[in-house]
Amino acid sequence: MILCVCLNPALDVTYAVDELVYGGVHRAKVTGRRAGGKALNVARVLRQLGEPVLATGLAGGADGEAVLADLAAAGVAAEFAAIEGQSRRTVTIYDGRNATEFDEVGPAVSEAEWGSFRSLASRLLAGAAVVVLSGSQPPGVPADAYGQLTALAAAAGAAVVLDAAGPALRAALADRPDVVKPNRLELAALAGHPLGGLDDLLAASGTLVEAGAGSVLVSLGADGLVAVTPDGSFRASLPSPVAGNPTGAGDALAAAVARGLRRGHDWPSCLADGMAVAAASVAVDVAGATDEALAAQLRPTVELEKLG
Amino acid sequence: MILCVCLNPALDVTYAVDELVYGGVHRAKVTGRRAGGKALNVARVLRQLGEPVLATGLAGGADGEAVLADLAAAGVAAEFAAIEGQSRRTVTIYDGRNATEFDEVGPAVSEAEWGSFRSLASRLLAGAAVVVLSGSQPPGVPADAYGQLTALAAAAGAAVVLDAAGPALRAALADRPDVVKPNRLELAALAGHPLGGLDDLLAASGTLVEAGAGSVLVSLGADGLVAVTPDGSFRASLPSPVAGNPTGAGDALAAAVARGLRRGHDWPSCLADGMAVAAASVAVDVAGATDEALAAQLRPTVELEKLG
Repeated sequence: MILCVCLNPALDVTYAVDELVYGGVHRAKVTGRRAGGKALNVARVLRQLGEPVLATGLAGGADGEAVLADLAAAGVAAEFAAIEGQSRRTVTIYDGRNATEFDEVGPAVSEAEWGSFRSLASRLLAGAAVVVLSGSQPPGVPADAYGQLTALAAAAGAAVVLDAAGPALRAALADRPDVVKPNRLELAALAGHPLGGLDDLLAASGTLVEAGAGSVLVSLGADGLVAVTPDGSFRASLPSPVAGNPTGAGDALAAAVARGLRRGHDWPSCLADGMAVAAASVAVDVAGATDEALAAQLRPTVELEKLG
Repeated sequence: MILCVCLNPALDVTYAVDELVYGGVHRAKVTGRRAGGKALNVARVLRQLGEPVLATGLAGGADGEAVLADLAAAGVAAEFAAIEGQSRRTVTIYDGRNATEFDEVGPAVSEAEWGSFRSLASRLLAGAAVVVLSGSQPPGVPADAYGQLTALAAAAGAAVVLDAAGPALRAALADRPDVVKPNRLELAALAGHPLGGLDDLLAASGTLVEAGAGSVLVSLGADGLVAVTPDGSFRASLPSPVAGNPTGAGDALAAAVARGLRRGHDWPSCLADGMAVAAASVAVDVAGATDEALAAQLRPTVELEKLG
């Protein structure tokens, strides 16, 4: 089973308005209401791909219940730790041209609640081959939460795919996550300087490997990805980009890589799969879904270059 | 008892953001979470003034429960009809300079649910001396909902204060509400032409009286109010405006007038009270509250001019 950990799930609500006027009062039509959070997008894609998946995390309040109900409706198995605080909501205003998004920070999690979640995670990790740790952390969760979970996963023999940024990523490296998946901006922020070409990306990725990461996948949007792995360093790309909505493409990549790890595929295969599933997800309007037929078409066209 | 009818209550949520950027993604801090809707503001002011008050309307879903819980916390007695749909939410984004507001339309109310509410309203009206009908209507509620409730109130011997605009106000006039309370813009929209000076306001108000309104109060913001009543036509104003947040001043006016009607005060007294309570509410940062000490200070300074 692949365990997807979503510490700060959200109820994603979308409003349609005629025109967004700063300082104005708008009549807003609710056009979407959906469980959100990067790890939940990963879980949805895994469910779509037919992988055994379980979502977990911390959820509370009415919006937390709505998140769990939406996961159940999507057929994603879930077992969350209940918290006293209210799970957050994101509000996206769409005026027919652009989306303007407001993300609540998330509920305050107590030390006792974090302790309960650790126990739950330990229990669930016993049945997991791979765990995906992805997304933001609510207030109160320890800064090294992903490090703690990585250590628990290692003790349980589960491989870790970590998609986090900044301090949360940095704090987890010492616990040796199997895969980290920053995008170019997140990697530059960690490196502390802008990243130019391939050499810069490889050097910055190498620093993460030295700090403890087993493999580093750097997603480059339409330019594909660069990976530093035990099987070597690679660049994966497609002959032509897929048009559509790139939101959630990184989550589809994480899902495909988690599937590959669970199945014991080598890195060239994981990367080609990841590239195809992520690119095909761009053709689907919502995050947390891919176009499986398109992914199968794209898979043989992925250009995989070994860099060393 | 004064019955306040809120057909479309809302959970008013306020977010603080650093800067509102069109098309951007914002970290939003929840700074407010409160029961909203004009009739609920009226009920809060009446409760503050020590009047016996009961709030009623239609509420459903988690946000409906949050509205009822907030009313209970505010000490406002409430008895709402439960509906299948979710009560709406309003989201206001405050960036330290301006407020940008997004108002959900509200839940779809079925014919059976409207029927149940009518029964509830009939029962509650039996104990009411005055009923305040105020605010928007959710989808599915009949266009003449306020007319129907005005007729029920008349049958029960309760005086009606109606604060509505457009078709909802127009459709209710034939049922002879005791007081209607449009602002200048709403009156102009009903008249179908811009309103200039006092004569225009009196003429347009007179049209509403001919159409069935017992009295017409036109709120003019900092310029006070104009009223056409069975005791004559009046203009009420203050020597100098009160600085602050005018949101909810109209609701404070409705509350003071409802109190006056319940106590059998004549119109000059109702108008002077209303002017003082409404102006004093401007000094309070939130809607649905007034500054009672300031209202008592302002009361003797109200200038009441009899127009005919």
